[in-house]
Amino acid sequence: MSDIDVLVIGSGIAGLSAAIAARQAGAESVIIAEAAGGIGGASRLSSGLIVGAGTAMQATAGIADSAELMFRDYMNANQWGLDGGVTRRLAAESGPTIDWLVSLGAEFHPTPVSGGYETQPRCAVAIDEGQGLIDALARAARNLDIDVALGQRVDRLLVKDGVVVGAAVGDDELSASAVIIASGGFGSNPEKIAEFYPSLAKAGDWLWYVGEDGSHGDAIDLGQQVGARITGHDTGCSMLAPGFTRSHETYLPGWLVIVDPDGQRFIAENAHYSALDRQAVLRGGRFFVLFDSQALDPEAAKATPFYAGGSKAYPGRTERTSPNWNPDILREMVAAGRIPFADSIAELAVAVGVPDDQLEATIAEYNEGAQAGLDRMGKYPEFLRPLEKSPFYAAEIRLSEIVITGTGLQIDPEARVLDALGCPIPGLFAAGEATGGVIWPFYPSSGSSLGHGAAFGRVAGTNAAARSIAGA
Amino acid sequence: MSDIDVLVIGSGIAGLSAAIAARQAGAESVIIAEAAGGIGGASRLSSGLIVGAGTAMQATAGIADSAELMFRDYMNANQWGLDGGVTRRLAAESGPTIDWLVSLGAEFHPTPVSGGYETQPRCAVAIDEGQGLIDALARAARNLDIDVALGQRVDRLLVKDGVVVGAAVGDDELSASAVIIASGGFGSNPEKIAEFYPSLAKAGDWLWYVGEDGSHGDAIDLGQQVGARITGHDTGCSMLAPGFTRSHETYLPGWLVIVDPDGQRFIAENAHYSALDRQAVLRGGRFFVLFDSQALDPEAAKATPFYAGGSKAYPGRTERTSPNWNPDILREMVAAGRIPFADSIAELAVAVGVPDDQLEATIAEYNEGAQAGLDRMGKYPEFLRPLEKSPFYAAEIRLSEIVITGTGLQIDPEARVLDALGCPIPGLFAAGEATGGVIWPFYPSSGSSLGHGAAFGRVAGTNAAARSIAGA
Repeated sequence: MSDIDVLVIGSGIAGLSAAIAARQAGAESVIIAEAAGGIGGASRLSSGLIVGAGTAMQATAGIADSAELMFRDYMNANQWGLDGGVTRRLAAESGPTIDWLVSLGAEFHPTPVSGGYETQPRCAVAIDEGQGLIDALARAARNLDIDVALGQRVDRLLVKDGVVVGAAVGDDELSASAVIIASGGFGSNPEKIAEFYPSLAKAGDWLWYVGEDGSHGDAIDLGQQVGARITGHDTGCSMLAPGFTRSHETYLPGWLVIVDPDGQRFIAENAHYSALDRQAVLRGGRFFVLFDSQALDPEAAKATPFYAGGSKAYPGRTERTSPNWNPDILREMVAAGRIPFADSIAELAVAVGVPDDQLEATIAEYNEGAQAGLDRMGKYPEFLRPLEKSPFYAAEIRLSEIVITGTGLQIDPEARVLDALGCPIPGLFAAGEATGGVIWPFYPSSGSSLGHGAAFGRVAGTNAAARSIAGA
Repeated sequence: MSDIDVLVIGSGIAGLSAAIAARQAGAESVIIAEAAGGIGGASRLSSGLIVGAGTAMQATAGIADSAELMFRDYMNANQWGLDGGVTRRLAAESGPTIDWLVSLGAEFHPTPVSGGYETQPRCAVAIDEGQGLIDALARAARNLDIDVALGQRVDRLLVKDGVVVGAAVGDDELSASAVIIASGGFGSNPEKIAEFYPSLAKAGDWLWYVGEDGSHGDAIDLGQQVGARITGHDTGCSMLAPGFTRSHETYLPGWLVIVDPDGQRFIAENAHYSALDRQAVLRGGRFFVLFDSQALDPEAAKATPFYAGGSKAYPGRTERTSPNWNPDILREMVAAGRIPFADSIAELAVAVGVPDDQLEATIAEYNEGAQAGLDRMGKYPEFLRPLEKSPFYAAEIRLSEIVITGTGLQIDPEARVLDALGCPIPGLFAAGEATGGVIWPFYPSSGSSLGHGAAFGRVAGTNAAARSIAGA
């Protein structure tokens, strides 16, 4: 006999969903071990957007969505490199999971929004963001007599004859019919970033992580103890940032002009952050933002919009502003010598080590496009502000703010953790950021991380309960 | 004064469209120089599918499509790595271009079809395939007094003060106000494949090209003479093929089981050929198809469908069959010693140099999934035929059949050829397979190649005419 039916490691949205689903599916004793001193992990700090296709909320809003559309969107965004059966399961579970969260007391703004380039708006927006969602799930967990053991960092899985039969915190062992790893990612662990997310490790001392300090990547360590396959190498969701402040900035202002170290543009700067992230990884992760004196002049800066729709923000949010690319910060950074400038583009190029003929040609073309309202990279005309008033500035930006890490345990459509040969490890499940490869390398849209956390958390919990009921 | 207004190099769909558009836009003297002895280039050999969003045909069929949807589809498929302004122009021109082809006498089956994973069916299907399309355009060109000079392989551009002012075949020079390079790709040129499409060069002596023998890649040579930027490295549209026959095979039978040299599956084998192509490039291009004795038994083979919908084919086509993966060819290849076989999966693995434990695990998982009707890679259940009747076979396949090459001249949204710094080269335009990067690396759908050929051919022709009228 095991001490308990189901042990869940981690209390973010994946862990809470898993624990609740396990109880609902008939597991009698469910414990969550949480390494931190409070509930919620990185989910708590998130914006509370969560993807679900075919929800009641969408139906009410007249949005014709389906699991098939979401499946296609996720597969297309990742050039069909995902394990399709896992993606199909995710898409199928995503809508019912949102409805289930609502049934548990989670509250959402009434109308789902677009979180990226998906074909239908399918991001539910939690009231009070990630914290609101976590609070609701924590209440639901309490009502189901789920214990959350805080300050318990699981460091070892118990294995018997190849079957995971529990876990331990130091010498404190607990046996369970099933263990669900939902311990999140490794954004706060520099060694793991160096090993599993080298494109971000390159940012050097610019690197920072917006999530939870406790995101050590325990899932990888625990998985490796039992021969789990680690997948999703060098993927995740990260932001291009200038290192001025450590303020999270999801969407860059559309008027930015970004060039690579060869002095060439490579994307419309008003693209979705997922697109910027992906293309930045493919191009080395280090770039320059070019601008002219207009960006430092509060009046001139106002003349060009920062974001599509002016200040497009999600329901319940304050107007979107840029913590880095506003005249105050830019003046401060120039004064501090952090932003090279020059009277001509050619001199600026020399100052930052970019080929001057290329940078001149790039800016000349950009300016011509701005005059014509037609940009070769496809930036929306409203953002096209020519660089014409010297001095000119070049602020370095790096892919340096980690939001989500994508390397982790490989799972199958039943949220079972797979071994090195791809066979399920009996007794072991995983969900959320602890997993790898599920939605990577192209983060399909905002809300995809909470979405797969909740959906596979629910699948894992249900299957773990079935295992305990079957007498494992 | 130039000898003529517009010189077009190549008489495929891009060249014919360019020449016709130039005449319609007011160019009086337009000549097409065609290297081969007949009109039509590789377009002539194509299936005659051509993409256009927002066509009259779609409207009649009740398909609600738009340039914006097509733009999104192309950008998403390529993870937003395309020059967005070029893609936006392509999407905007694509529908009107189909309507224009109809106005020129091109005939299409009434209802557009899906050519891949696009959000709306937007492939017009030409009656009598590529040849039908070329015949119609050739007639239209004749009616507009456009000369097609056959057997004239342009080998040199004429340049004066940095402006392209004509072209030459050997010593035979012809001056023109504008030159449009529409000379196609380099599928029949092994040296260029080695340099610009190394993922296919790896196929070694399995490599073959389904297109026109004359596809030497002149566009790259001509462009390099004038400092054009060559882009789209190592991209194109190619097929996984077993080297049994040199028969073009677009869609692989769904029942195939493909493993990489590590013995792992990586995609649902019933995926669209673009997806197979892209993932095959990312994974080295060499794989094995596993099957059992059922595939060699005409009765047993019939029990599992080959294609979605049974024999899904486009209007006007005969039922789809597999030229390679049918019992007759397989028996022949086994008899010829071309397909290793063994009584067990483990022995088969040893025979082909794949790790035996991994291959056993892969096939065991596949078989379990087949029983359950749920495949981790997401293959449709109808195709899941377990490998259970020995002997077992492993046929090598390689990414080895080139259909379209993707490296070529970089163009801007006006179809102007860009130099190494990204500035337009005066007097020089390009369209179709002669260009690079426009729709790559993920071929967005069938019909995308003819689609951008015709659309940018039309743009190039129109702009070239304007240049000649302006007195260049």
